Amino acid sequence: MRNLKSSSILQANPEFFLPGISIDCVVIAYDLNQINILLNKLEVLDLWMLPGGFIFQDEDMDQAATRILEERTGIKLPYMKQFYTFGDVNRRDRTRITLFDGRKDKAYLRFRKFLEQRFISSGYLSLVDMRDCHPTPDILSDECTWHPFNKLPELIYDHGEIVNKAMEELRRWINYMPVGMSLLPEKFTMKDFQILYEQILDRELDRGNFQKKMLKLGFLDRHEKQLSGGAHKAPYLYSFNEKKYNELVEKGIGYINS
Amino acid sequence: MRNLKSSSILQANPEFFLPGISIDCVVIAYDLNQINILLNKLEVLDLWMLPGGFIFQDEDMDQAATRILEERTGIKLPYMKQFYTFGDVNRRDRTRITLFDGRKDKAYLRFRKFLEQRFISSGYLSLVDMRDCHPTPDILSDECTWHPFNKLPELIYDHGEIVNKAMEELRRWINYMPVGMSLLPEKFTMKDFQILYEQILDRELDRGNFQKKMLKLGFLDRHEKQLSGGAHKAPYLYSFNEKKYNELVEKGIGYINS
Repeated sequence: MRNLKSSSILQANPEFFLPGISIDCVVIAYDLNQINILLNKLEVLDLWMLPGGFIFQDEDMDQAATRILEERTGIKLPYMKQFYTFGDVNRRDRTRITLFDGRKDKAYLRFRKFLEQRFISSGYLSLVDMRDCHPTPDILSDECTWHPFNKLPELIYDHGEIVNKAMEELRRWINYMPVGMSLLPEKFTMKDFQILYEQILDRELDRGNFQKKMLKLGFLDRHEKQLSGGAHKAPYLYSFNEKKYNELVEKGIGYINS
Repeated sequence: MRNLKSSSILQANPEFFLPGISIDCVVIAYDLNQINILLNKLEVLDLWMLPGGFIFQDEDMDQAATRILEERTGIKLPYMKQFYTFGDVNRRDRTRITLFDGRKDKAYLRFRKFLEQRFISSGYLSLVDMRDCHPTPDILSDECTWHPFNKLPELIYDHGEIVNKAMEELRRWINYMPVGMSLLPEKFTMKDFQILYEQILDRELDRGNFQKKMLKLGFLDRHEKQLSGGAHKAPYLYSFNEKKYNELVEKGIGYINS
Protein backbone atom coordinates (compact mmCIF):
# COMPACT_ATOMS: atom_id res chain seq x y z
CA MET A 1 0.00 0.00 0.00
CA ARG A 2 1.23 3.41 -0.92
CA ASN A 3 2.11 5.68 1.95
CA LEU A 4 -1.06 7.44 2.95
CA LYS A 5 0.47 10.84 2.83
CA SER A 6 1.93 10.35 -0.62
CA SER A 7 -1.22 11.52 -2.32
CA SER A 8 -1.28 14.81 -0.49
CA ILE A 9 -1.45 17.14 -3.35
CA LEU A 10 1.34 19.40 -2.15
CA GLN A 11 3.81 16.58 -1.76
CA ALA A 12 3.33 14.75 -5.02
CA ASN A 13 4.26 16.04 -8.44
CA PRO A 14 0.99 16.66 -10.32
CA GLU A 15 2.47 14.75 -13.23
CA PHE A 16 2.17 11.61 -11.11
CA PHE A 17 -1.60 11.93 -11.47
CA LEU A 18 -3.87 11.36 -14.46
CA PRO A 19 -4.81 14.78 -15.84
CA GLY A 20 -8.39 16.00 -15.60
CA ILE A 21 -9.87 13.07 -13.67
CA SER A 22 -10.77 13.16 -10.00
CA ILE A 23 -12.62 10.96 -7.57
CA ASP A 24 -15.32 12.13 -5.17
CA CYS A 25 -16.53 9.88 -2.39
CA VAL A 26 -19.99 9.95 -0.87
CA VAL A 27 -19.37 8.18 2.43
CA ILE A 28 -22.57 7.29 4.21
CA ALA A 29 -23.00 6.18 7.82
CA TYR A 30 -26.21 5.67 9.74
CA ASP A 31 -26.55 6.89 13.28
CA LEU A 32 -29.31 8.08 15.60
CA ASN A 33 -31.83 7.07 12.95
CA GLN A 34 -30.39 9.38 10.35
CA ILE A 35 -28.20 9.17 7.28
CA ASN A 36 -24.92 11.03 7.63
CA ILE A 37 -22.44 12.14 4.99
CA LEU A 38 -18.74 12.71 5.53
CA LEU A 39 -17.50 16.17 4.51
CA ASN A 40 -14.21 18.03 4.45
CA LYS A 41 -14.03 21.72 5.19
CA LEU A 42 -11.56 23.63 3.08
CA GLU A 43 -9.21 25.55 5.35
CA VAL A 44 -9.67 29.32 5.51
CA LEU A 45 -12.30 29.34 2.74
CA ASP A 46 -14.99 27.86 4.97
CA LEU A 47 -16.29 25.73 2.10
CA TRP A 48 -17.50 22.15 2.47
CA MET A 49 -16.70 19.43 -0.01
CA LEU A 50 -16.80 15.68 -0.46
CA PRO A 51 -13.64 13.72 0.36
CA GLY A 52 -11.83 13.20 -2.91
CA GLY A 53 -8.55 12.97 -4.72
CA PHE A 54 -6.70 12.03 -7.84
CA ILE A 55 -5.55 8.87 -9.59
CA PHE A 56 -1.87 7.99 -9.83
CA GLN A 57 -0.63 7.14 -13.32
CA ASP A 58 0.06 3.56 -12.26
CA GLU A 59 -3.07 3.04 -10.19
CA ASP A 60 -6.48 1.57 -11.11
CA MET A 61 -9.33 3.99 -10.55
CA ASP A 62 -10.84 1.61 -7.95
CA GLN A 63 -7.51 1.41 -6.14
CA ALA A 64 -7.40 5.21 -6.01
CA ALA A 65 -10.91 5.30 -4.52
CA THR A 66 -9.94 2.68 -1.92
CA ARG A 67 -6.80 4.65 -1.02
CA ILE A 68 -8.67 7.95 -0.75
CA LEU A 69 -11.38 6.36 1.39
CA GLU A 70 -8.79 4.83 3.68
CA GLU A 71 -7.00 8.18 4.00
CA ARG A 72 -10.23 9.93 5.04
CA THR A 73 -11.86 7.22 7.17
CA GLY A 74 -9.05 4.95 8.37
CA ILE A 75 -11.06 1.97 7.11
CA LYS A 76 -9.23 -0.57 5.00
CA LEU A 77 -11.29 -1.81 2.05
CA PRO A 78 -14.59 -0.19 3.02
CA TYR A 79 -17.70 -1.29 1.09
CA MET A 80 -17.76 0.98 -1.94
CA LYS A 81 -19.06 1.10 -5.47
CA GLN A 82 -18.53 3.50 -8.32
CA PHE A 83 -21.94 4.95 -9.19
CA TYR A 84 -21.61 7.75 -11.75
CA THR A 85 -19.09 9.93 -13.53
CA PHE A 86 -19.77 13.65 -13.65
CA GLY A 87 -18.60 15.24 -16.87
CA ASP A 88 -20.39 18.54 -17.43
CA VAL A 89 -18.23 21.41 -18.66
CA ASN A 90 -19.71 23.78 -16.08
CA ARG A 91 -19.66 21.44 -13.09
CA ARG A 92 -17.38 23.78 -11.15
CA ASP A 93 -19.06 27.03 -12.13
CA ARG A 94 -20.98 27.34 -8.87
CA THR A 95 -17.79 28.01 -6.91
CA ARG A 96 -14.85 30.14 -7.94
CA ILE A 97 -11.88 29.68 -5.66
CA THR A 98 -8.24 30.48 -5.92
CA LEU A 99 -6.07 28.11 -4.00
CA PHE A 100 -2.68 29.06 -2.63
CA ASP A 101 -3.45 32.73 -3.09
CA GLY A 102 -0.29 34.81 -2.85
CA ARG A 103 2.03 31.79 -2.94
CA LYS A 104 4.69 32.13 -5.59
CA ASP A 105 6.59 28.86 -4.97
CA LYS A 106 6.96 26.78 -8.07
CA ALA A 107 5.32 23.71 -6.47
CA TYR A 108 2.24 25.71 -5.53
CA LEU A 109 1.93 27.29 -8.97
CA ARG A 110 2.35 23.92 -10.63
CA PHE A 111 -0.45 22.49 -8.50
CA ARG A 112 -2.69 25.44 -9.02
CA LYS A 113 -2.33 24.90 -12.77
CA PHE A 114 -3.14 21.21 -12.30
CA LEU A 115 -6.20 22.02 -10.21
CA GLU A 116 -7.47 24.67 -12.57
CA GLN A 117 -7.88 22.37 -15.58
CA ARG A 118 -11.29 20.93 -16.42
CA PHE A 119 -12.01 17.85 -14.27
CA ILE A 120 -14.32 14.94 -14.84
CA SER A 121 -15.07 13.22 -11.55
CA SER A 122 -16.04 9.65 -10.79
CA GLY A 123 -18.35 9.30 -7.81
CA TYR A 124 -17.93 6.39 -5.38
CA LEU A 125 -20.59 5.51 -2.85
CA SER A 126 -19.34 3.94 0.36
CA LEU A 127 -21.42 2.60 3.25
CA VAL A 128 -19.57 2.45 6.55
CA ASP A 129 -20.08 1.87 10.23
CA MET A 130 -19.46 5.17 11.99
CA ARG A 131 -17.79 3.38 14.90
CA ASP A 132 -15.10 1.98 12.58
CA CYS A 133 -14.44 5.36 11.07
CA HIS A 134 -11.78 7.90 12.06
CA PRO A 135 -12.44 10.95 9.93
CA THR A 136 -9.21 12.67 8.96
CA PRO A 137 -9.08 15.99 7.09
CA ASP A 138 -6.89 16.14 3.99
CA ILE A 139 -4.04 18.60 3.73
CA LEU A 140 -6.23 21.36 2.31
CA SER A 141 -8.88 20.96 4.99
CA ASP A 142 -9.14 21.68 8.67
CA GLU A 143 -12.20 19.54 9.46
CA CYS A 144 -13.55 16.20 8.34
CA THR A 145 -16.90 15.53 9.98
CA TRP A 146 -20.26 13.82 9.68
CA HIS A 147 -23.30 15.83 8.60
CA PRO A 148 -26.94 14.68 8.63
CA PHE A 149 -28.06 14.24 5.02
CA ASN A 150 -31.12 16.42 5.52
CA LYS A 151 -29.08 19.29 7.02
CA LEU A 152 -26.06 19.49 4.72
CA PRO A 153 -24.21 22.80 4.48
CA GLU A 154 -23.80 24.30 1.02
CA LEU A 155 -21.27 22.26 -0.93
CA ILE A 156 -18.59 23.33 -3.35
CA TYR A 157 -18.92 22.89 -7.15
CA ASP A 158 -21.49 20.21 -8.12
CA HIS A 159 -20.94 18.20 -4.92
CA GLY A 160 -24.58 18.71 -3.87
CA GLU A 161 -25.63 17.07 -7.13
CA ILE A 162 -23.14 14.25 -6.54
CA VAL A 163 -24.67 13.57 -3.11
CA ASN A 164 -28.19 13.56 -4.58
CA LYS A 165 -27.15 11.17 -7.34
CA ALA A 166 -25.58 8.89 -4.73
CA MET A 167 -28.84 8.85 -2.75
CA GLU A 168 -30.76 8.06 -5.96
CA GLU A 169 -28.37 5.17 -6.50
CA LEU A 170 -28.87 3.92 -2.94
CA ARG A 171 -32.65 4.06 -3.48
CA ARG A 172 -32.19 1.88 -6.56
CA TRP A 173 -29.96 -0.56 -4.67
CA ILE A 174 -32.73 -1.11 -2.16
CA ASN A 175 -34.92 -2.44 -4.96
CA TYR A 176 -32.51 -5.00 -6.29
CA MET A 177 -30.33 -5.98 -3.37
CA PRO A 178 -30.33 -5.96 0.44
CA VAL A 179 -28.86 -2.83 2.02
CA GLY A 180 -27.87 -2.37 5.64
CA MET A 181 -24.90 -4.64 6.35
CA SER A 182 -22.34 -1.96 7.14
CA LEU A 183 -24.93 0.60 8.24
CA LEU A 184 -26.79 -1.14 11.06
CA PRO A 185 -25.23 -2.56 14.24
CA GLU A 186 -24.74 -6.32 14.39
CA LYS A 187 -28.13 -6.88 16.02
CA PHE A 188 -31.14 -4.70 15.30
CA THR A 189 -34.91 -4.72 15.54
CA MET A 190 -37.22 -4.90 12.55
CA LYS A 191 -38.20 -1.33 13.38
CA ASP A 192 -34.53 -0.19 13.17
CA PHE A 193 -34.29 -1.87 9.78
CA GLN A 194 -37.51 -0.28 8.54
CA ILE A 195 -36.45 3.20 9.70
CA LEU A 196 -33.20 2.83 7.75
CA TYR A 197 -35.16 1.98 4.59
CA GLU A 198 -37.59 4.82 5.23
CA GLN A 199 -34.70 7.27 5.63
CA ILE A 200 -33.18 6.11 2.36
CA LEU A 201 -36.48 6.21 0.47
CA ASP A 202 -37.60 9.39 2.22
CA ARG A 203 -41.10 8.02 2.77
CA GLU A 204 -43.00 5.82 5.21
CA LEU A 205 -43.41 2.10 4.57
CA ASP A 206 -46.18 -0.18 5.73
CA ARG A 207 -44.93 -2.09 8.77
CA GLY A 208 -46.57 -5.46 8.12
CA ASN A 209 -45.73 -5.46 4.44
CA PHE A 210 -42.11 -4.49 5.06
CA GLN A 211 -41.59 -7.23 7.64
CA LYS A 212 -43.25 -9.84 5.42
CA LYS A 213 -41.12 -8.94 2.40
CA MET A 214 -37.87 -8.83 4.30
CA LEU A 215 -38.44 -12.14 6.09
CA LYS A 216 -39.46 -13.80 2.82
CA LEU A 217 -36.07 -12.95 1.30
CA GLY A 218 -34.39 -15.10 3.93
CA PHE A 219 -31.31 -13.00 4.70
CA LEU A 220 -32.29 -12.19 8.29
CA ASP A 221 -31.52 -14.43 11.25
CA ARG A 222 -33.89 -13.99 14.17
CA HIS A 223 -32.42 -14.28 17.66
CA GLU A 224 -34.13 -15.70 20.71
CA LYS A 225 -35.30 -13.11 23.20
CA GLN A 226 -33.26 -12.89 26.37
CA LEU A 227 -35.10 -14.43 29.31
CA SER A 228 -35.36 -11.57 31.76
CA GLY A 229 -37.93 -9.38 33.49
CA GLY A 230 -40.14 -7.71 30.89
CA ALA A 231 -38.48 -9.59 28.08
CA HIS A 232 -41.72 -10.82 26.58
CA LYS A 233 -42.43 -7.28 25.55
CA ALA A 234 -39.03 -6.69 23.99
CA PRO A 235 -38.98 -6.90 20.20
CA TYR A 236 -37.06 -9.65 18.44
CA LEU A 237 -33.51 -8.87 17.44
CA TYR A 238 -32.25 -9.76 13.98
CA SER A 239 -28.87 -9.94 12.31
CA PHE A 240 -27.87 -10.32 8.70
CA ASN A 241 -27.11 -13.84 7.53
CA GLU A 242 -23.93 -12.90 5.70
CA LYS A 243 -23.97 -15.83 3.30
CA LYS A 244 -27.56 -15.30 2.18
CA TYR A 245 -27.15 -11.52 2.18
CA ASN A 246 -24.20 -11.78 -0.19
CA GLU A 247 -26.01 -14.28 -2.39
CA LEU A 248 -28.83 -11.78 -2.83
CA VAL A 249 -26.38 -8.93 -3.53
CA GLU A 250 -24.94 -11.16 -6.27
CA LYS A 251 -28.16 -12.61 -7.66
CA GLY A 252 -30.32 -9.55 -7.12
CA ILE A 253 -33.84 -9.29 -5.84
CA GLY A 254 -36.43 -7.17 -7.55
CA TYR A 255 -39.70 -7.17 -9.34
CA ILE A 256 -38.90 -9.89 -11.84
CA ASN A 257 -36.93 -12.08 -9.48
CA SER A 258 -39.31 -11.89 -6.56
CA MET B 1 -24.83 20.75 -33.52
CA ARG B 2 -21.20 20.27 -34.35
CA ASN B 3 -20.41 18.97 -37.81
CA LEU B 4 -20.53 15.20 -37.55
CA LYS B 5 -17.17 14.72 -39.19
CA SER B 6 -15.46 17.20 -36.89
CA SER B 7 -14.72 14.56 -34.32
CA SER B 8 -12.93 12.29 -36.79
CA ILE B 9 -9.71 11.86 -35.02
CA LEU B 10 -7.57 12.63 -38.05
CA GLN B 11 -9.24 15.93 -38.75
CA ALA B 12 -9.29 17.46 -35.31
CA ASN B 13 -6.30 18.58 -33.31
CA PRO B 14 -5.97 16.17 -30.36
CA GLU B 15 -5.64 19.19 -28.10
CA PHE B 16 -9.30 19.91 -28.79
CA PHE B 17 -10.11 16.78 -26.76
CA LEU B 18 -9.88 16.11 -23.04
CA PRO B 19 -6.76 14.02 -22.45
CA GLY B 20 -7.06 10.42 -21.30
CA ILE B 21 -10.85 10.14 -21.31
CA SER B 22 -12.82 8.28 -23.93
CA ILE B 23 -16.41 7.17 -24.40
CA ASP B 24 -17.48 3.68 -25.43
CA CYS B 25 -21.05 3.00 -26.47
CA VAL B 26 -22.87 -0.29 -26.08
CA VAL B 27 -25.69 0.14 -28.59
CA ILE B 28 -28.32 -2.56 -28.25
CA ALA B 29 -31.10 -3.41 -30.70
CA TYR B 30 -33.48 -6.35 -30.60
CA ASP B 31 -34.31 -8.28 -33.74
CA LEU B 32 -35.35 -11.83 -34.67
CA ASN B 33 -35.73 -12.58 -30.97
CA GLN B 34 -32.13 -11.80 -30.17
CA ILE B 35 -30.11 -9.00 -28.63
CA ASN B 36 -27.68 -7.35 -31.04
CA ILE B 37 -24.72 -5.11 -30.39
CA LEU B 38 -23.29 -2.54 -32.79
CA LEU B 39 -19.59 -2.99 -33.56
CA ASN B 40 -16.96 -1.21 -35.64
CA LYS B 41 -14.27 -3.16 -37.44
CA LEU B 42 -10.88 -1.49 -37.44
CA GLU B 43 -9.64 -1.22 -41.01
CA VAL B 44 -6.83 -3.56 -42.02
CA LEU B 45 -6.35 -4.90 -38.51
CA ASP B 46 -9.51 -7.00 -38.57
CA LEU B 47 -10.27 -6.10 -34.96
CA TRP B 48 -13.76 -5.40 -33.65
CA MET B 49 -14.49 -2.65 -31.18
CA LEU B 50 -17.36 -0.69 -29.64
CA PRO B 51 -18.31 2.61 -31.26
CA GLY B 52 -16.57 5.30 -29.28
CA GLY B 53 -14.81 8.62 -29.30
CA PHE B 54 -13.46 11.52 -27.34
CA ILE B 55 -14.81 14.56 -25.53
CA PHE B 56 -14.19 18.06 -26.83
CA GLN B 57 -12.79 20.52 -24.30
CA ASP B 58 -15.98 22.59 -24.47
CA GLU B 59 -18.43 19.68 -24.51
CA ASP B 60 -20.30 17.93 -21.67
CA MET B 61 -19.55 14.21 -21.49
CA ASP B 62 -23.22 13.42 -22.18
CA GLN B 63 -23.15 15.69 -25.23
CA ALA B 64 -20.11 13.84 -26.50
CA ALA B 65 -21.90 10.50 -26.09
CA THR B 66 -24.96 11.84 -27.92
CA ARG B 67 -22.77 13.14 -30.76
CA ILE B 68 -20.82 9.87 -31.05
CA LEU B 69 -24.04 7.83 -31.02
CA GLU B 70 -25.54 10.05 -33.72
CA GLU B 71 -22.39 9.70 -35.84
CA ARG B 72 -22.53 5.91 -35.66
CA THR B 73 -26.30 5.32 -35.82
CA GLY B 74 -27.79 8.37 -37.53
CA ILE B 75 -30.27 8.61 -34.63
CA LYS B 76 -30.72 12.01 -33.03
CA LEU B 77 -30.99 11.82 -29.24
CA PRO B 78 -31.23 8.02 -28.91
CA TYR B 79 -32.20 6.61 -25.50
CA MET B 80 -28.93 6.34 -23.64
CA LYS B 81 -27.55 6.26 -20.12
CA GLN B 82 -24.06 6.33 -18.73
CA PHE B 83 -23.58 3.09 -16.80
CA TYR B 84 -19.95 2.70 -15.66
CA THR B 85 -16.49 4.19 -16.06
CA PHE B 86 -13.63 1.79 -16.73
CA GLY B 87 -10.41 2.89 -15.11
CA ASP B 88 -8.05 -0.07 -14.75
CA VAL B 89 -4.42 0.61 -15.62
CA ASN B 90 -4.23 -2.54 -17.73
CA ARG B 91 -7.54 -2.21 -19.55
CA ARG B 92 -5.83 -2.11 -22.93
CA ASP B 93 -3.28 -4.84 -22.28
CA ARG B 94 -5.22 -7.52 -24.13
CA THR B 95 -4.59 -5.83 -27.48
CA ARG B 96 -1.38 -4.23 -28.65
CA ILE B 97 -1.87 -2.28 -31.83
CA THR B 98 0.12 0.36 -33.60
CA LEU B 99 -2.04 2.76 -35.50
CA PHE B 100 -0.80 4.60 -38.57
CA ASP B 101 2.15 2.26 -38.90
CA GLY B 102 4.75 3.70 -41.24
CA ARG B 103 3.12 7.11 -41.39
CA LYS B 104 5.55 9.90 -40.60
CA ASP B 105 3.23 12.90 -41.08
CA LYS B 106 3.15 15.20 -38.09
CA ALA B 107 -0.65 14.96 -37.71
CA TYR B 108 -0.51 11.18 -37.56
CA LEU B 109 2.32 11.13 -35.04
CA ARG B 110 0.53 13.68 -32.90
CA PHE B 111 -2.57 11.50 -32.90
CA ARG B 112 -0.67 8.34 -32.23
CA LYS B 113 0.80 10.02 -29.17
CA PHE B 114 -2.67 11.09 -28.08
CA LEU B 115 -4.04 7.57 -28.57
CA GLU B 116 -1.17 5.90 -26.77
CA GLN B 117 -1.71 7.62 -23.42
CA ARG B 118 -3.61 5.84 -20.68
CA PHE B 119 -7.36 6.16 -21.19
CA ILE B 120 -10.23 5.92 -18.75
CA SER B 121 -13.44 5.21 -20.60
CA SER B 122 -17.04 5.98 -19.71
CA GLY B 123 -19.54 3.40 -20.96
CA TYR B 124 -22.91 4.50 -22.31
CA LEU B 125 -25.72 2.03 -22.85
CA SER B 126 -28.13 2.88 -25.64
CA LEU B 127 -31.30 1.01 -26.64
CA VAL B 128 -32.39 1.63 -30.21
CA ASP B 129 -34.81 0.40 -32.83
CA MET B 130 -32.76 -1.27 -35.56
CA ARG B 131 -35.05 0.13 -38.23
CA ASP B 132 -34.22 3.71 -37.20
CA CYS B 133 -30.53 3.01 -37.27
CA HIS B 134 -28.07 3.59 -40.11
CA PRO B 135 -24.76 2.15 -38.93
CA THR B 136 -21.84 4.21 -40.18
CA PRO B 137 -18.21 3.18 -39.69
CA ASP B 138 -15.88 5.79 -38.23
CA ILE B 139 -12.81 6.97 -40.11
CA LEU B 140 -10.59 4.21 -38.69
CA SER B 141 -13.09 1.45 -39.52
CA ASP B 142 -14.37 -0.20 -42.67
CA GLU B 143 -17.49 -1.82 -41.20
CA CYS B 144 -20.11 -0.92 -38.63
CA THR B 145 -22.55 -3.79 -38.19
CA TRP B 146 -24.88 -5.58 -35.79
CA HIS B 147 -23.73 -8.74 -34.04
CA PRO B 148 -25.86 -11.14 -31.98
CA PHE B 149 -24.86 -10.76 -28.32
CA ASN B 150 -24.33 -14.49 -27.90
CA LYS B 151 -22.05 -14.71 -30.96
CA LEU B 152 -19.80 -11.69 -30.58
CA PRO B 153 -16.39 -11.76 -32.25
CA GLU B 154 -13.37 -11.16 -30.02
CA LEU B 155 -13.27 -7.53 -29.05
CA ILE B 156 -10.33 -5.16 -28.66
CA TYR B 157 -9.00 -4.10 -25.23
CA ASP B 158 -11.55 -4.55 -22.40
CA HIS B 159 -14.54 -4.03 -24.70
CA GLY B 160 -15.82 -7.55 -23.98
CA GLU B 161 -15.93 -6.63 -20.29
CA ILE B 162 -17.67 -3.35 -21.14
CA VAL B 163 -20.38 -5.26 -23.05
CA ASN B 164 -20.84 -7.68 -20.14
CA LYS B 165 -21.11 -4.83 -17.65
CA ALA B 166 -23.71 -3.17 -19.91
CA MET B 167 -25.75 -6.38 -19.95
CA GLU B 168 -25.50 -6.60 -16.15
CA GLU B 169 -26.81 -3.05 -16.00
CA LEU B 170 -29.70 -3.87 -18.33
CA ARG B 171 -30.55 -6.87 -16.11
CA ARG B 172 -30.70 -4.48 -13.15
CA TRP B 173 -32.87 -1.99 -15.06
CA ILE B 174 -35.43 -4.73 -15.64
CA ASN B 175 -35.87 -5.02 -11.89
CA TYR B 176 -36.53 -1.39 -11.22
CA MET B 177 -38.04 0.01 -14.40
CA PRO B 178 -39.86 -1.13 -17.53
CA VAL B 179 -37.58 -1.97 -20.46
CA GLY B 180 -38.61 -2.48 -24.06
CA MET B 181 -39.83 0.87 -25.40
CA SER B 182 -37.20 1.39 -28.09
CA LEU B 183 -36.47 -2.33 -28.49
CA LEU B 184 -39.85 -3.81 -29.41
CA PRO B 185 -42.02 -2.77 -32.38
CA GLU B 186 -45.01 -0.53 -31.65
CA LYS B 187 -47.33 -3.53 -31.20
CA PHE B 188 -46.21 -6.84 -29.80
CA THR B 189 -47.56 -9.98 -28.18
CA MET B 190 -47.03 -10.87 -24.53
CA LYS B 191 -44.85 -13.69 -25.81
CA ASP B 192 -42.60 -11.23 -27.72
CA PHE B 193 -42.28 -9.18 -24.53
CA GLN B 194 -41.44 -12.23 -22.43
CA ILE B 195 -38.80 -13.44 -24.91
CA LEU B 196 -37.11 -10.03 -24.77
CA TYR B 197 -36.94 -10.27 -20.97
CA GLU B 198 -35.71 -13.85 -21.15
CA GLN B 199 -32.97 -12.84 -23.58
CA ILE B 200 -31.86 -10.04 -21.28
CA LEU B 201 -31.94 -12.22 -18.16
CA ASP B 202 -30.56 -15.26 -20.00
CA ARG B 203 -33.08 -17.58 -18.37
CA GLU B 204 -36.65 -18.74 -18.83
CA LEU B 205 -39.52 -17.05 -17.02
CA ASP B 206 -42.83 -18.52 -15.98
CA ARG B 207 -45.43 -17.43 -18.55
CA GLY B 208 -48.40 -16.91 -16.21
CA ASN B 209 -46.37 -15.11 -13.57
CA PHE B 210 -44.69 -12.83 -16.12
CA GLN B 211 -47.99 -11.82 -17.69
CA LYS B 212 -49.61 -11.21 -14.29
CA LYS B 213 -46.73 -9.02 -13.06
CA MET B 214 -46.49 -7.00 -16.24
CA LEU B 215 -50.23 -6.33 -16.48
CA LYS B 216 -50.36 -5.38 -12.81
CA LEU B 217 -47.83 -2.58 -13.42
CA GLY B 218 -50.29 -0.93 -15.79
CA PHE B 219 -47.95 0.32 -18.50
CA LEU B 220 -49.31 -1.96 -21.26
CA ASP B 221 -52.33 -1.10 -23.43
CA ARG B 222 -54.12 -4.11 -24.82
CA HIS B 223 -55.55 -3.82 -28.33
CA GLU B 224 -58.72 -5.43 -29.62
CA LYS B 225 -58.15 -8.41 -31.86
CA GLN B 226 -58.87 -7.79 -35.55
CA LEU B 227 -62.07 -9.45 -36.66
CA SER B 228 -60.97 -11.80 -39.42
CA GLY B 229 -60.83 -15.52 -40.28
CA GLY B 230 -58.98 -17.35 -37.50
CA ALA B 231 -58.65 -14.23 -35.43
CA HIS B 232 -60.02 -15.78 -32.28
CA LYS B 233 -56.84 -17.83 -32.09
CA ALA B 234 -54.52 -14.85 -32.59
CA PRO B 235 -52.87 -13.58 -29.42
CA TYR B 236 -53.65 -10.13 -28.09
CA LEU B 237 -51.38 -7.34 -29.18
CA TYR B 238 -50.04 -4.83 -26.68
CA SER B 239 -48.30 -1.50 -26.87
CA PHE B 240 -46.57 0.59 -24.25
CA ASN B 241 -48.61 3.32 -22.63
CA GLU B 242 -45.94 5.98 -22.92
CA LYS B 243 -47.19 8.13 -20.05
CA LYS B 244 -47.41 5.25 -17.56
CA TYR B 245 -44.19 3.71 -18.86
CA ASN B 246 -42.30 6.94 -18.26
CA GLU B 247 -43.88 7.39 -14.83
CA LEU B 248 -42.55 3.97 -13.86
CA VAL B 249 -39.10 4.75 -15.28
CA GLU B 250 -39.15 7.85 -13.07
CA LYS B 251 -40.69 6.36 -9.94
CA GLY B 252 -39.16 2.91 -10.24
CA ILE B 253 -40.67 -0.48 -9.68
CA GLY B 254 -38.95 -3.08 -7.64
CA TYR B 255 -39.16 -5.23 -4.59
CA ILE B 256 -39.90 -2.48 -2.12
CA ASN B 257 -42.21 -0.48 -4.36
CA SER B 258 -44.25 -3.38 -5.70
